Amino acid sequence: MGIVVVGTVAYDSIETPFGKVEETLGGSALYFTVAASFFTRVGIVAVIGEDFDLGKISFLKDRNVSFDGLYVEKGKTFRWKGYYSYNLNEAHTLDTQLNVLENFDPILPEEFTRKDLLFLANIDPELQLKVLDQMKNVKFSAADTMNFWIDSKKEKVMEVFSRVNAVTINEGEIRELTEEYNLVKAARKILDIGPEHVIIKRGEYGVLVFEKSGEVFFVPAYPLEKVFDPTGAGDTFAGGFMGFLDSQGEIKRNLRKAVIYGSVLASYNVEKFSFLKLLEISRQDIDERYREFLNFCRVE
Amino acid sequence: MGIVVVGTVAYDSIETPFGKVEETLGGSALYFTVAASFFTRVGIVAVIGEDFDLGKISFLKDRNVSFDGLYVEKGKTFRWKGYYSYNLNEAHTLDTQLNVLENFDPILPEEFTRKDLLFLANIDPELQLKVLDQMKNVKFSAADTMNFWIDSKKEKVMEVFSRVNAVTINEGEIRELTEEYNLVKAARKILDIGPEHVIIKRGEYGVLVFEKSGEVFFVPAYPLEKVFDPTGAGDTFAGGFMGFLDSQGEIKRNLRKAVIYGSVLASYNVEKFSFLKLLEISRQDIDERYREFLNFCRVE
Repeated sequence: MGIVVVGTVAYDSIETPFGKVEETLGGSALYFTVAASFFTRVGIVAVIGEDFDLGKISFLKDRNVSFDGLYVEKGKTFRWKGYYSYNLNEAHTLDTQLNVLENFDPILPEEFTRKDLLFLANIDPELQLKVLDQMKNVKFSAADTMNFWIDSKKEKVMEVFSRVNAVTINEGEIRELTEEYNLVKAARKILDIGPEHVIIKRGEYGVLVFEKSGEVFFVPAYPLEKVFDPTGAGDTFAGGFMGFLDSQGEIKRNLRKAVIYGSVLASYNVEKFSFLKLLEISRQDIDERYREFLNFCRVE
Repeated sequence: MGIVVVGTVAYDSIETPFGKVEETLGGSALYFTVAASFFTRVGIVAVIGEDFDLGKISFLKDRNVSFDGLYVEKGKTFRWKGYYSYNLNEAHTLDTQLNVLENFDPILPEEFTRKDLLFLANIDPELQLKVLDQMKNVKFSAADTMNFWIDSKKEKVMEVFSRVNAVTINEGEIRELTEEYNLVKAARKILDIGPEHVIIKRGEYGVLVFEKSGEVFFVPAYPLEKVFDPTGAGDTFAGGFMGFLDSQGEIKRNLRKAVIYGSVLASYNVEKFSFLKLLEISRQDIDERYREFLNFCRVE
């Protein structure tokens, strides 16, 4: 049991049609960890600067998150600044400051290398590969990316994807990566290079999973009256997905349930800035919303 | 039993990224009728010009479609010309020639006025109201519209919607009609004026149903390798939806199934120009694809 995640820990500045926030907690590995920690033990692999206030994430220790792979380096923490217009499906980047991320070399604590599950959250694909190489006996691995890496290191992204069990990717990103507008064809191009599951994230349209077996699975997005801030929704989805999978042990039989749990976590996360909403909910809330999701597609 | 539909019969000229066709059969009432005739008896109320080749739709008589409300008037049949780019969710109109539609006065044959189900397909909302007024004992009614009528006769559209059991509408159109971007809020605005069901059509993202009861129901779109031509998909959806409902008798218990049957018919329809694909399939094909749809959301 246990999950290793590598990705970013960041200070985000975000503007949406509903509000604005400066230097709030974010980053792909942090969102993932907060979500997954509802279900299982997580070891986070990331780098932060000396300016990072560790007290703000100390609650994760009570949830059995290991910080042994969280490195504090000289310099400032990674920063992202962006905004969303009413079409909340698309983030617009205003500024990216890599800072300590520039020289990050993710060395895994020995204990991490023997974990069952691995999530390669959005970060330089060369770092994702370095982490993958250190793992000794992974039972189930998944990877995410973003358009920035597809533009600059497409082959490395494909190499990562060829070596994991599942890929989680945005609708626009898989179209760009495969140069294929149709999602059935785009997903097949990814399935052909290795993974058994291609999980396409479509924001307010939910999640679409293509299986190597030819099966297709859909989960709608939770119909919210207000999507306040979509930042981190994809990483939160992945955290719920992988966290639930790890808590159940058997992968195949639980994969579809896990996709719904991921959707539940993501639906909470977009209700407030950062992962603030996730700090207000309990495992019971999550299970209740899971049952609501089942009802959305119930026929009789 | 039996459905009355009022709407258009048209000659469409369409260009998509995959091909081009001139003056093919189309129109909201015709698409609806072809789909619904798989399930039940349909009485079509529409107007055509002297140039219309009735032989091309005579196959519908073998499917128990009544043409008693199909009026041939002096002049030319209604024509629509449009194109789609790779984002097939949005039609671009190049030309509209109302022709005989301009003076259409839909008088229902006496037999039609006693039918159980009524579909007000996309046409001038004042004509929709005229038809509604003539019906004597409708058990279940639904209405559709388009942005053209929302722009020009918004209050009449709302009057139609206030008097039917279900509204079928595109995602973009309900946002425009209610001036509300969020679909939960937009649907509530429509539910508040009367109908029990608001069925939002989202093209490749499927269908989303909001109920007066507060329940929500989703059906994904069928994952096709090629959406060849989306023209008429919404009317075909409505035809499958209403046709199945009428064939079952009891409405409430069958509503969700009917939404899936509508989605099945629409998924076939977009595979070729006009309703050509619907002429190649059998009721058995429809039932098989229905079972595939059930699997898309099956959790265990």
